[in-house]
Amino acid sequence: MEGKEEDVKLGANKYSERQPIGTSAQTDKDYKEPPPAPLFEPGELSSWSFYRAGIAEFIATFLFLYISVLTVMGVVKSPTKCGTVGIQGIAWAFGGMIFALVYCTAGISGGHINPAVTFGLLLARKLSLTRALFYMVMQCLGAICGAGVVKGFMGKQEFTTLGGGANSVAHGYTKGSGLGAEIVGTFVLVYTVFSATDAKRSARDSHVPILAPLPIGFAVFLVHLATIPITGTGINPARSLGAAIIYNKDHAWDDHWIFWVGPFIGAALAAIYHVIVIRAIPFKSRS
Amino acid sequence: MEGKEEDVKLGANKYSERQPIGTSAQTDKDYKEPPPAPLFEPGELSSWSFYRAGIAEFIATFLFLYISVLTVMGVVKSPTKCGTVGIQGIAWAFGGMIFALVYCTAGISGGHINPAVTFGLLLARKLSLTRALFYMVMQCLGAICGAGVVKGFMGKQEFTTLGGGANSVAHGYTKGSGLGAEIVGTFVLVYTVFSATDAKRSARDSHVPILAPLPIGFAVFLVHLATIPITGTGINPARSLGAAIIYNKDHAWDDHWIFWVGPFIGAALAAIYHVIVIRAIPFKSRS
Amino acid sequence: MEGKEEDVKLGANKYSERQPIGTSAQTDKDYKEPPPAPLFEPGELSSWSFYRAGIAEFIATFLFLYISVLTVMGVVKSPTKCGTVGIQGIAWAFGGMIFALVYCTAGISGGHINPAVTFGLLLARKLSLTRALFYMVMQCLGAICGAGVVKGFMGKQEFTTLGGGANSVAHGYTKGSGLGAEIVGTFVLVYTVFSATDAKRSARDSHVPILAPLPIGFAVFLVHLATIPITGTGINPARSLGAAIIYNKDHAWDDHWIFWVGPFIGAALAAIYHVIVIRAIPFKSRS
Amino acid sequence: MEGKEEDVKLGANKYSERQPIGTSAQTDKDYKEPPPAPLFEPGELSSWSFYRAGIAEFIATFLFLYISVLTVMGVVKSPTKCGTVGIQGIAWAFGGMIFALVYCTAGISGGHINPAVTFGLLLARKLSLTRALFYMVMQCLGAICGAGVVKGFMGKQEFTTLGGGANSVAHGYTKGSGLGAEIVGTFVLVYTVFSATDAKRSARDSHVPILAPLPIGFAVFLVHLATIPITGTGINPARSLGAAIIYNKDHAWDDHWIFWVGPFIGAALAAIYHVIVIRAIPFKSRS
Repeated sequence: MEGKEEDVKLGANKYSERQPIGTSAQTDKDYKEPPPAPLFEPGELSSWSFYRAGIAEFIATFLFLYISVLTVMGVVKSPTKCGTVGIQGIAWAFGGMIFALVYCTAGISGGHINPAVTFGLLLARKLSLTRALFYMVMQCLGAICGAGVVKGFMGKQEFTTLGGGANSVAHGYTKGSGLGAEIVGTFVLVYTVFSATDAKRSARDSHVPILAPLPIGFAVFLVHLATIPITGTGINPARSLGAAIIYNKDHAWDDHWIFWVGPFIGAALAAIYHVIVIRAIPFKSRS
Repeated sequence: MEGKEEDVKLGANKYSERQPIGTSAQTDKDYKEPPPAPLFEPGELSSWSFYRAGIAEFIATFLFLYISVLTVMGVVKSPTKCGTVGIQGIAWAFGGMIFALVYCTAGISGGHINPAVTFGLLLARKLSLTRALFYMVMQCLGAICGAGVVKGFMGKQEFTTLGGGANSVAHGYTKGSGLGAEIVGTFVLVYTVFSATDAKRSARDSHVPILAPLPIGFAVFLVHLATIPITGTGINPARSLGAAIIYNKDHAWDDHWIFWVGPFIGAALAAIYHVIVIRAIPFKSRS
Repeated sequence: MEGKEEDVKLGANKYSERQPIGTSAQTDKDYKEPPPAPLFEPGELSSWSFYRAGIAEFIATFLFLYISVLTVMGVVKSPTKCGTVGIQGIAWAFGGMIFALVYCTAGISGGHINPAVTFGLLLARKLSLTRALFYMVMQCLGAICGAGVVKGFMGKQEFTTLGGGANSVAHGYTKGSGLGAEIVGTFVLVYTVFSATDAKRSARDSHVPILAPLPIGFAVFLVHLATIPITGTGINPARSLGAAIIYNKDHAWDDHWIFWVGPFIGAALAAIYHVIVIRAIPFKSRS
Repeated sequence: MEGKEEDVKLGANKYSERQPIGTSAQTDKDYKEPPPAPLFEPGELSSWSFYRAGIAEFIATFLFLYISVLTVMGVVKSPTKCGTVGIQGIAWAFGGMIFALVYCTAGISGGHINPAVTFGLLLARKLSLTRALFYMVMQCLGAICGAGVVKGFMGKQEFTTLGGGANSVAHGYTKGSGLGAEIVGTFVLVYTVFSATDAKRSARDSHVPILAPLPIGFAVFLVHLATIPITGTGINPARSLGAAIIYNKDHAWDDHWIFWVGPFIGAALAAIYHVIVIRAIPFKSRS
């Protein structure tokens, strides 16, 4: 444990055994660790790609809220859940949209669509502070617009009656449980994002770069399966904020801090786990 | 923003960081932008591949309507939805068929299976006007035949009683909401198609060309989850036309314009978004 | 249409436009058309790989029937379908198993797991007659054993009461509709198999060889969504035979011919469509 | 059958026909069979990667139990299953988590997350005995903690009332059926794992290394669809132990041996099938 960074040994890793030198699978080819992103990158603000990335985050979060909140409305509206896509359908709407949107925007903005993901990647120094703040603002604006369009389609009164897809802690659960559920849920998501974006992993495991958007979307789907009964599942402060602003009732605002504090703690834990344990960067001589 | 077309910077893009020079993932290799398709390509009409592509679109749209409308019939027929595959199963039928059919026909015809997709790609000059019109005619013919076979299996009377899978705006929603739902829904689909077929993206992001049919199918699935309660979900004028012709009742025809106007507007918006924002082609010196 | 076999033109094919020379995606690299398989390959019978392939087909069909029929039993047993995985869960069991088993056995036996698939590939001269017959026998034996184990777990009486997962035409449908549903359903499956195994397509479209097992599994899932209410969905004579032999009631045997004739016609149509239309082999000078 | 290890012949294998020399797909490139792992690897215990792998197994099994048991609680808690994600949602939670976690941890620890998988790979000499025991201990500890956190969120009384996600043989099934269901179910899972990690298969079939986590997750999903009505589905002794310890009622402990003996027998059968039949290692001169 004296800080040597060696690869998982043969026999431990059922994948590495498939990739000895000379096979067609990607082997121990060298990869370059990208340098940590600076906090402020002056050139960024004058590049079109910076603003394009922000627009892409806005549109993606807009579509995310539009499809997911509209699905929630359709399920809640029906007196009998059997005649709807059901709670499982809601989980698919959230997870499936993240899959499709990460696929579409990954090459444009990195496909965050979630301030907690942006925060986690900022802590790991994957993007500048300027860019992180810009993304978060665009995500929140997109989310507000997405929920707003759903309200326009449903009519104001019905939207309010049906709860507007806003997050709050369900009866029978303490605020502590709600906060815990948001923390662990966001950990699952951001841990998956880190695994999918690890330069070292991508160079070695052939499934990592190709499938990346799929497990990220599945992580969102799975957390919804588990925690819809507890908080309605946030794990995305922009999603919670957008629904809360358009819904705008006291009981949604009362719990609202949980959907910022929880996801940010979860994302920070995932960043720490990835950097300290998985990459063991503090133990390496070359940073 | 002075028109320079530069790549997303490191740190902003969680995927690009995985692809520095020397890794096995696809990096900044050069790619050639294909020239815009001419409106009329004289040689096309005398090539077998042109007619083969049209036949493939016919067969694909035929199978799409057959499986999806038959699934709708099975769900509607049952008095209790719990004894069926449910509304979620209907969404899977539409989205899953698009996934499988895009996979199968992408290399033959491009795998449109939808006049709105053909229209969006035409606007972006990805195919000639001749070919676009030929595809749309074949898609509509395939859709009519697919719905017709379902009617043959179910019997005329039952097919009519069960609604024939035709699209119309549900009670409780305005025609404006229905049109809006079709516009945004088709935007989601055609935006995904553009992302999956972007030569630049495919050259850089290793997940784009490999997974392409999957997010396209998921986009269809997700829009169905959200808008089945509003319009039954068209986002495909051939699907709406085929079902309407075979069903042939006034209330389906009354709303029918929505399922052409909505998808075509949505597809046009997606084409504009892709060309102006994502590719920033107006700002580039080389077109 | 004078028989020249040219590639789909740029502009028609949204995928080919992503693959100009010089990109990292697979382009117009040459591929060798494999020669048609001989009807009898004498060396085959003395090779271990021939018998191994048969064993793999046996085990795969065994596991396919075991999981799928057990899932059917669990759903049918419950008085309320909401407390089960539902009809949609049954469709996932059939389709998902085909996905997993094609993934696992493709490199060993080709991953047919279905006499109709074997028949279609035989017509297209992809395997010898000897091997095709050997596969079909092993598939049927595996199916019988799989259904038998389920009967052992459930108890004879309950297995019979619950219908044993056997196929028959449902009340309210004619035998003609049942046969038609089997023909079109098998066409969907075998057409997907041909698309996934086309040497030319694999060399050109980067998604074809990688994703192959997924659309094949989805095809089975989708056909089940649509035709479970009509025939319970066969599209696999081994599956229908195995369930029928273990269930062994007259009403299952009365319709049993449908589940052989239908799939074989569907597979033949898919083979003809692929060879004549998609590959246009009759029009090519080099066979 | 005299021990020659030859590849599946053309015509038999629908995939190999896609991969003649000169195509872009992976062809008959040579691969190196990794040597069997020694029972004791002295250097292992002093490497950081050994402990990191154990931590990764702990965290993965923790998250697996957390999400899956929480999903079970949400479904069981509701009086009407239609207002929940349903039994099918439970199957997705188990299978989906395995997909995401195998994706994330494959490159770190091999992504076992299951003592039965570790046991099967140990029998096939893919990892050392030291490492296997270390993994199993970490998996069990992770599972206990994951179930414990769920109990903390739900409250002790409710957790106990709702059954705590513990495995036991359902009324109406014999212990023999339960044991059989665990054996065959684990066989399906471990057989898929072996297929996904076969160096020879990965070198030849382009879909094997890329998709690997997906069929492994699907195998878990499918076995749950089939056997939740019988045993609640274990096929993972750590999952069964974790839930049993936190639930801690006699009737869960009475059947507990089934969820160790069954999975270990199933894993051993899968290892034997893979080594003897698929790889035919006893028949090869070079081991």
